[in-house]
Amino acid sequence: MYQLNLAELSVSDFLNNYWQKVPLLIKNGFKNFADPLSADELAGLAQDEEIESRIVSCEGQQWDMQTGPFDDFSQLGEKNWTLLVQAVDHWHPMAARLIDPFRFIPNWRIDDLMVSFSTPGGGVGPHLDQYDVFIIQGEGRRHWRVGMPDPSLQQLCPHPRLLQVSPFNACIDVITEPGDILYIPPGCPHDGISLENSLNYSVGFRAPAQKDLLTGLADYLIDHDVTGKRFTDPARQASVSVGAIEKTDLQKVRQLMQELVEDDSMLPNWFGSLITRAKHELDLNEPDPHYSAEEIAEYIEEGSVLSRTGGLRCCYFQDNAAANIALFINGDQITLPPDELATAKLLCDYTELASEHNLHFCQSVERTMLLTNLINQGYWYFSE
Amino acid sequence: MYQLNLAELSVSDFLNNYWQKVPLLIKNGFKNFADPLSADELAGLAQDEEIESRIVSCEGQQWDMQTGPFDDFSQLGEKNWTLLVQAVDHWHPMAARLIDPFRFIPNWRIDDLMVSFSTPGGGVGPHLDQYDVFIIQGEGRRHWRVGMPDPSLQQLCPHPRLLQVSPFNACIDVITEPGDILYIPPGCPHDGISLENSLNYSVGFRAPAQKDLLTGLADYLIDHDVTGKRFTDPARQASVSVGAIEKTDLQKVRQLMQELVEDDSMLPNWFGSLITRAKHELDLNEPDPHYSAEEIAEYIEEGSVLSRTGGLRCCYFQDNAAANIALFINGDQITLPPDELATAKLLCDYTELASEHNLHFCQSVERTMLLTNLINQGYWYFSE
Ligand SMILES: O=C(O)CCC(=O)C(=O)O
Ligand SMILES: O=C(O)CCC(=O)C(=O)O
Ligand SMILES: [Co+2]
Ligand SMILES: [Co+2]
Repeated sequence: MYQLNLAELSVSDFLNNYWQKVPLLIKNGFKNFADPLSADELAGLAQDEEIESRIVSCEGQQWDMQTGPFDDFSQLGEKNWTLLVQAVDHWHPMAARLIDPFRFIPNWRIDDLMVSFSTPGGGVGPHLDQYDVFIIQGEGRRHWRVGMPDPSLQQLCPHPRLLQVSPFNACIDVITEPGDILYIPPGCPHDGISLENSLNYSVGFRAPAQKDLLTGLADYLIDHDVTGKRFTDPARQASVSVGAIEKTDLQKVRQLMQELVEDDSMLPNWFGSLITRAKHELDLNEPDPHYSAEEIAEYIEEGSVLSRTGGLRCCYFQDNAAANIALFINGDQITLPPDELATAKLLCDYTELASEHNLHFCQSVERTMLLTNLINQGYWYFSE
Repeated sequence: MYQLNLAELSVSDFLNNYWQKVPLLIKNGFKNFADPLSADELAGLAQDEEIESRIVSCEGQQWDMQTGPFDDFSQLGEKNWTLLVQAVDHWHPMAARLIDPFRFIPNWRIDDLMVSFSTPGGGVGPHLDQYDVFIIQGEGRRHWRVGMPDPSLQQLCPHPRLLQVSPFNACIDVITEPGDILYIPPGCPHDGISLENSLNYSVGFRAPAQKDLLTGLADYLIDHDVTGKRFTDPARQASVSVGAIEKTDLQKVRQLMQELVEDDSMLPNWFGSLITRAKHELDLNEPDPHYSAEEIAEYIEEGSVLSRTGGLRCCYFQDNAAANIALFINGDQITLPPDELATAKLLCDYTELASEHNLHFCQSVERTMLLTNLINQGYWYFSE
């Protein structure tokens, strides 16, 4: 388990003063840091065509970018390149644990763990992202510079598939060592150049844009066959110009849209489905044959430990203590009765469930059935 | 030209007292009615695979429904079936003129002209529609019954592809004769049974539902690469339950959605594009070779008449006299300067432009170019 060490800061201090506002170096954020994986293991993941990876290199002034899978790293030389692998938490349970110390931010805001291996001189160049990120320095050292958002920065495109920014003023300029953590808010330019072979772990966040949200609601309406109200105009006056779209008609259109987005009975449902949909492939291992509920109960009573598949997105929403609970797992919604909050919390708040927790699922047939279904879909598995 | 005869009613009376409220029989609405097409011509259209058609029949108690194209009508017998052809205004300029008398309702609310041919006993059965319709009786006579909306009516499905309703109380019960018009608001049950071979013309309306509107906005955002604002939470507090979706977060999501649908700079644009998109194939004849602007100007100066392709959807929006005009043609938006309102009106308010109107398009290079482009896309054509 990794334990976050904020030194004199509390989590509240961090949230109040830095989160989404100012970059922060958390020196020695993980004490005695041990890498959860090796550069070789990362190269192994980059060979898998289900896993998104890319190599960014810069020879002379010439930037290049290739996308994986990669079979052969021998042509790359020993300098000036970086291998980046996306969603490593989906494939590597130990690496996935690096996300847990940051779970004072809710699940739905967390995206994935990207891992990079850089040779000396390697880096993706100065750039900015639209999302918050914690970058953890693993083995090796890297020279990181981070600046504040600056509208005068220019977008550069040194290669058709690379977006960079013009040189920026740094408010953090540091050589990161194993266990150091950088927090970088959206829009802050940053640039990391490796001093030696080095691993970096990026815990990235999600922040849906208006377009994503609207598309999420549209998908919900289609999936649930919700047509909604139709335009009506019982007070229409004869048109002066039949080709004109009148403002009064546009106001009615807006009104219909407003009613739709303000519908409190749909909002948590479409948002929960949207925000728990995985962006990257999951490593789901559906048990074959499926378990029966009796077998599941037996394993639990024997003290087995349950693990959630890496990257599986789980959230719940309950409007009030008397309302049903909407449980969202991997984009699907499951409705639980009002008094099953403990069930929702066990599934959503923990990535690993110790044996003493699991007895909860044996206390009713419904709970055992729910867990059995989740295990038979490969969402949870017995890890001990 | 067809001239609507509302007897003692004015158009305003009709709108105030009937439109979207109460069914109305307009006896002899078209005086001395002459059918714009014959049953044989309709059968010809139903042979075309670009044209949507269906045949509904009822033998004994057995309803059946087939979709076209239809090559052979010889097996159908002489009774108890109806051929219905959609969007006849797209293919038959004379039939399209039947829509014009109803253009006191703006273009964007009008859908298409459906034409049916029914043999004695023929009809689609008692049903209700979600849209307003004017049904014009052509040749022959039909027994029409129309009722008020009634939540106690049951949905029936006498055939997998037919939706009917249970027997209803009629507020109109009439034998329609050539030139009679029925106005039927959305949700009013209706049933027409032919007494003899008979043609009916349905001028149908469009009323977008909330889902259509939302999908229209989503399409606009995608087409115009509008991402919009991202979710931000600089005031976040540490999560008590990381799996919970908090109400404060949902409020922020709703706020982002509200800002999007209330954006007055986008609303007319996405709505105009959505509502002018054709639902059925258009009969576009792109001239080959294309006309030059000089040739167009010549034809106009010689006094040619311009016709708009049947079913082409044209609207415009101008926020105020100093604002640009958004002209929408077949889902595409064209921006005109503020003083070109006359141009937008000529294109959108008329389905046919007499020679004296057309000189307008020769008065500036921009107008001639605009018209040339529209003609070269097959949207307008010289009809005389
Ligand atoms: O590890 C790297 O080289 C890039 C890290 C980065 O820029 C990020 O996670 O935003
Ligand atoms: O012409 C017909 O048989 C059906 C007409 C009708 O129901 C309609 O236009 O809504
Ligand atoms: Co970055
Ligand atoms: Co109908």
